[in-house]
Amino acid sequence: MRVEILTVGDELLLGSVVNSNAARLGRWLTEAGCQVTRATVVGDDVTAISAALREALRRADAVVITGGLGPTADDRTREALAAVAGVPLARDAGAEKELRAWYERHHQDVPGFALRQADLPAGAAPLPNPVGSAPGIRLLVDGVRVYALPGVPAEADAMFTAHVLPELRAGNPPAVRTLRTALLPEPLVAARLAPLEAEVPIGYLPQAGEVHVRLTAPSEERLLAVETRARELLGDVVYGTDADSLDVVVHRLLAARGATVATAESLTGGLTAGTLTDMPGASSTFRGAVVAYATELKAELLGVDRTLLDQSGAVHPEVARQMAVGVRDRLGTTYGIATTGVAGPDPQDGQPVGTVYIAVAGPAGTRVAAPRTGTDRATIRRVTVVAALDLLRRVLLDLPSEEGEETW
Amino acid sequence: MRVEILTVGDELLLGSVVNSNAARLGRWLTEAGCQVTRATVVGDDVTAISAALREALRRADAVVITGGLGPTADDRTREALAAVAGVPLARDAGAEKELRAWYERHHQDVPGFALRQADLPAGAAPLPNPVGSAPGIRLLVDGVRVYALPGVPAEADAMFTAHVLPELRAGNPPAVRTLRTALLPEPLVAARLAPLEAEVPIGYLPQAGEVHVRLTAPSEERLLAVETRARELLGDVVYGTDADSLDVVVHRLLAARGATVATAESLTGGLTAGTLTDMPGASSTFRGAVVAYATELKAELLGVDRTLLDQSGAVHPEVARQMAVGVRDRLGTTYGIATTGVAGPDPQDGQPVGTVYIAVAGPAGTRVAAPRTGTDRATIRRVTVVAALDLLRRVLLDLPSEEGEETW
Repeated sequence: MRVEILTVGDELLLGSVVNSNAARLGRWLTEAGCQVTRATVVGDDVTAISAALREALRRADAVVITGGLGPTADDRTREALAAVAGVPLARDAGAEKELRAWYERHHQDVPGFALRQADLPAGAAPLPNPVGSAPGIRLLVDGVRVYALPGVPAEADAMFTAHVLPELRAGNPPAVRTLRTALLPEPLVAARLAPLEAEVPIGYLPQAGEVHVRLTAPSEERLLAVETRARELLGDVVYGTDADSLDVVVHRLLAARGATVATAESLTGGLTAGTLTDMPGASSTFRGAVVAYATELKAELLGVDRTLLDQSGAVHPEVARQMAVGVRDRLGTTYGIATTGVAGPDPQDGQPVGTVYIAVAGPAGTRVAAPRTGTDRATIRRVTVVAALDLLRRVLLDLPSEEGEETW
Repeated sequence: MRVEILTVGDELLLGSVVNSNAARLGRWLTEAGCQVTRATVVGDDVTAISAALREALRRADAVVITGGLGPTADDRTREALAAVAGVPLARDAGAEKELRAWYERHHQDVPGFALRQADLPAGAAPLPNPVGSAPGIRLLVDGVRVYALPGVPAEADAMFTAHVLPELRAGNPPAVRTLRTALLPEPLVAARLAPLEAEVPIGYLPQAGEVHVRLTAPSEERLLAVETRARELLGDVVYGTDADSLDVVVHRLLAARGATVATAESLTGGLTAGTLTDMPGASSTFRGAVVAYATELKAELLGVDRTLLDQSGAVHPEVARQMAVGVRDRLGTTYGIATTGVAGPDPQDGQPVGTVYIAVAGPAGTRVAAPRTGTDRATIRRVTVVAALDLLRRVLLDLPSEEGEETW
């Protein structure tokens, strides 16, 4: 089942809104075993909608449209559907009844122009809208199933899952697994997986400090074999599977050991703590953080040696070590994480932009590392968070640091 | 100048990733006076990319492609470009040199397969990539300008603004202004602006805790009149203009007064401090933060009254007040910001999910507020950050809180 998604709306082309409808529908369709082959965005224009729909009808078995079903003059999907199907628009009695009921529930008279929402291409069926006023539309054009839904995400979602997805669900969806890796650049992840490239489709999704590797196989059994091989090739840069983010993985490792953590942050300014508290239930392993952005606060709040700060500046491996030890002691946790470095855009304390030291203090001592981060401020900060959490993971699992990463 | 955006990547069709590239490029192109007429997503497949590109070439004056330029076998944009242009791929000496330099900086030999990133369609020019390894590509096909950029947002953005946008900028772009508002829901922002709706195009971009309103007018003079009227209608929920984020606005207000700030955070877990340090130069006004996620740390690190915590729990307006005063005193800043509340998914201390108290302590006393936040954990945390920074803005400008917001 080849499915195309057609999203209608000027606001998407203007970039005022990100096309989250296409992503959500794409995920559900994929999980249902459909192949999403193209997603197209056009503006609120009958000619543009009609052209894109005609093209999609030539390629796909089904087309799901969102947007352009509202009551105002810039909602043109109904007209385009009728034009492409070569039929007139006709008032649907059932849809009109639903529409009148909606306005009644909102204690409003139906404005005359709003009744156009009950005008469907002749031969089409209305899809009930449990959330808003505009009904959806289902029709068959040239043997291709076409569904039109409102653009409002809550309405599109409710109608898609209730009425569209059950009709498109395929028998044998492929098995899919995502392996999440930390701190290895995409080209180097790909180099390790090169032996597997010829066997199954591999997708790479690089993010700041991470690469997510998507493995696809025709069966769960085949997928398991592929995943095992991929894990051998990648080694311990794989930190988690599917939806398990790094903070969740670290939380589980800490919880399993009855351990807790606190962070001491400079360049990351609280983002490491913010990431550790993304998940519900974080409070069982995360206690708190000290953000010592001003250099003197590293001494006052964390007990870093003032002479060291005066002589070496704040961006130094020994400063990271003392920050990690300091926050662990002061907040009474099993582990302490520290970050210090130069996020830029200007060098600091004689160190170039991108220089970062991270440390993890624990019962067995302290490990310090200098991760490669990036060149722009946002990336440097985000990669530092990943590096700090990954160092804690390595400490908890007693893994060495990656080759090429300097340690003290 | 009619421009189409073509985004390449299985992960977008599968819905693993939202197509934020198309939105950002669409916004920049629109602001530069281009008309973005269609945005298309296809998977990592030479046939699909080639077909979509051929179609776009028939309709547009320029096509901007993102994605499919990496080193792995699923990166197929180069091949598709060559096929559509009817030329072979040829190793570009300059691009190869850049690529070897990238791997050298990463202390790695260049894997044989990675050199394909330097293979460009004959006659194309490489676009330098200041962030990652893959060069971009510029070529002319059938008189249409085609640009191909990597899919990684930081790389695509840097290359697009440096090399593509200057070539596509139109002579008479419309005048555009974005007014940024905090804490007023989109329907209420739209209701205030209703008198302006018939005069100029207004775009609404809702985000967690914010709505950005885009005003477009044919001239700067006309825009100024429209902006003035919009500001009158919106009132002091407008905190900034265009790219001025709330942290930047607050930083400027603090800097102008020679004042500094620190944060004391519970449910936001460091995200308020993380936001205040997003911008370069934050250190002149931001000193640090204490994240007291565990309740007893609110007493130990911030001096909150233990009896109050025992009797009322951590989610209480007086706790917020004492946290703000405590961090201001301990970190020696002019102002202290505090957040405490229930991010969920479970109620805490007898308070329902979404209950949040924020406080700002300063030389003139302390203001506490209970913002309306949201229902899901991520939204509650992000809206709380916006509410906390906006309360500081209101304190600094001596503005009252919004109608409907409770204060103590």
